[in-house]
Amino acid sequence: MISKTTAKFIKSLQLKKYRKEEQSFLVEGKKSVQEVLQSDFEVTMLLATNDFIKDTIIPEEIEIIEASEKDLEKIGTLKSNNQALAVVKMKEDKRFTMSSSEYVIALDDINDPGNLGTIIRIADWYGISKVLASPNTADFYNPKVISASKGSFARVDVWYKDLSEVLSDVEVPVYGALLDGENVHQVSFSKGGILLMGNEAHGISAEIEKMVTSKITIPAYGRAESLNVAMATAIICDNVKRSLSAPL
Amino acid sequence: MISKTTAKFIKSLQLKKYRKEEQSFLVEGKKSVQEVLQSDFEVTMLLATNDFIKDTIIPEEIEIIEASEKDLEKIGTLKSNNQALAVVKMKEDKRFTMSSSEYVIALDDINDPGNLGTIIRIADWYGISKVLASPNTADFYNPKVISASKGSFARVDVWYKDLSEVLSDVEVPVYGALLDGENVHQVSFSKGGILLMGNEAHGISAEIEKMVTSKITIPAYGRAESLNVAMATAIICDNVKRSLSAPL
Repeated sequence: MISKTTAKFIKSLQLKKYRKEEQSFLVEGKKSVQEVLQSDFEVTMLLATNDFIKDTIIPEEIEIIEASEKDLEKIGTLKSNNQALAVVKMKEDKRFTMSSSEYVIALDDINDPGNLGTIIRIADWYGISKVLASPNTADFYNPKVISASKGSFARVDVWYKDLSEVLSDVEVPVYGALLDGENVHQVSFSKGGILLMGNEAHGISAEIEKMVTSKITIPAYGRAESLNVAMATAIICDNVKRSLSAPL
Repeated sequence: MISKTTAKFIKSLQLKKYRKEEQSFLVEGKKSVQEVLQSDFEVTMLLATNDFIKDTIIPEEIEIIEASEKDLEKIGTLKSNNQALAVVKMKEDKRFTMSSSEYVIALDDINDPGNLGTIIRIADWYGISKVLASPNTADFYNPKVISASKGSFARVDVWYKDLSEVLSDVEVPVYGALLDGENVHQVSFSKGGILLMGNEAHGISAEIEKMVTSKITIPAYGRAESLNVAMATAIICDNVKRSLSAPL
């Protein structure tokens, strides 16, 4: 049984204000919760179905509340298939650093939580573990971001920073996804760099574009006007890795 | 003003059964409706805001009903930003044919309408105008498919076919996205072919996998377990075009 107090607490974490106050966020769904239990995040409360509890190795110190799928769907954000819900402590802010031989994705005002989550999943697929986000980018701890990342939120760190400050300070190339850049198929990518992606509707803002050292463009062969930003990120990451691992 | 009969008719087209009966489907949102008005689809009814009507060249023979954004949101499926809604006639089925120098995307049970719409948009970006879909794939005329395609539905044809029949008949390679295939970065793609993508959860079914002549795999560099099927389609299309346009 889920008490009223617990239900209220869980629901409050759907809002950024309360997440910040409690320094906690929600992770939902079987796979994501299993991932977070295996990660170095601290789980402070676990609500789960009997099946989930039987299937999963759960550290002893975690408080477990058994609940039905229906009850979990009622207090959580997933409309179906919600076998588990965890309350997880935010990590303390680390300082952002990067080496000259790694890639970091920078996001200039990505508004849609689904896009941010998908970009985190793509970063993880391509072995990129750091994302820089402008302050107006969707909140990393939004349940939709966590869900869309399909567990990758546990392996990719996101920093919210004034991009113009950070980008003016880095010593690697800043590759900006723009419409008038070099064909991404022909770019010979540096060993490390920043991949800068712009807002869904307006692209990279004028101020941040000044920090771009190499404009890159995904060539179009048909008549679609644009690609979704998560799609574009996937294609660019693939080209970077392909370029770096190609025989000389 | 939207009459009750019209509202009921529009709402009925959200269901496949009535779309089939009426041989009509819905197109919603400013950009998509503008695209369909410029395409060779026949628009039989247009509901739009005054702003949309002023901004758009509308052929004389089309019946226009002026409506508020609020009313359009009430009868349509878009929760916001719905300035126009068109009722459009389905086209008559053409015979599926392909040349040996073109690419066709084949979908084995893609369930999610958003994924199908996004794949149509990607096909259009990469100049692929034909999609083969297994009978259990989401319905092309579902409003969510049309929306997610961002206007590309007007430029890409989708055929629902028994894939094993069609694929056993084609003379081009069938590239199947599988986990144990050749690294897509190293495949030297044929001038034309089929790109076969599998179901979101189960991948390509055993029966259809028999038709695959070349297994291909997107290499992972990190720890994410999988990529979304639309994402994978985008990356594979990009590799095909990159491989075909590369200097020998």
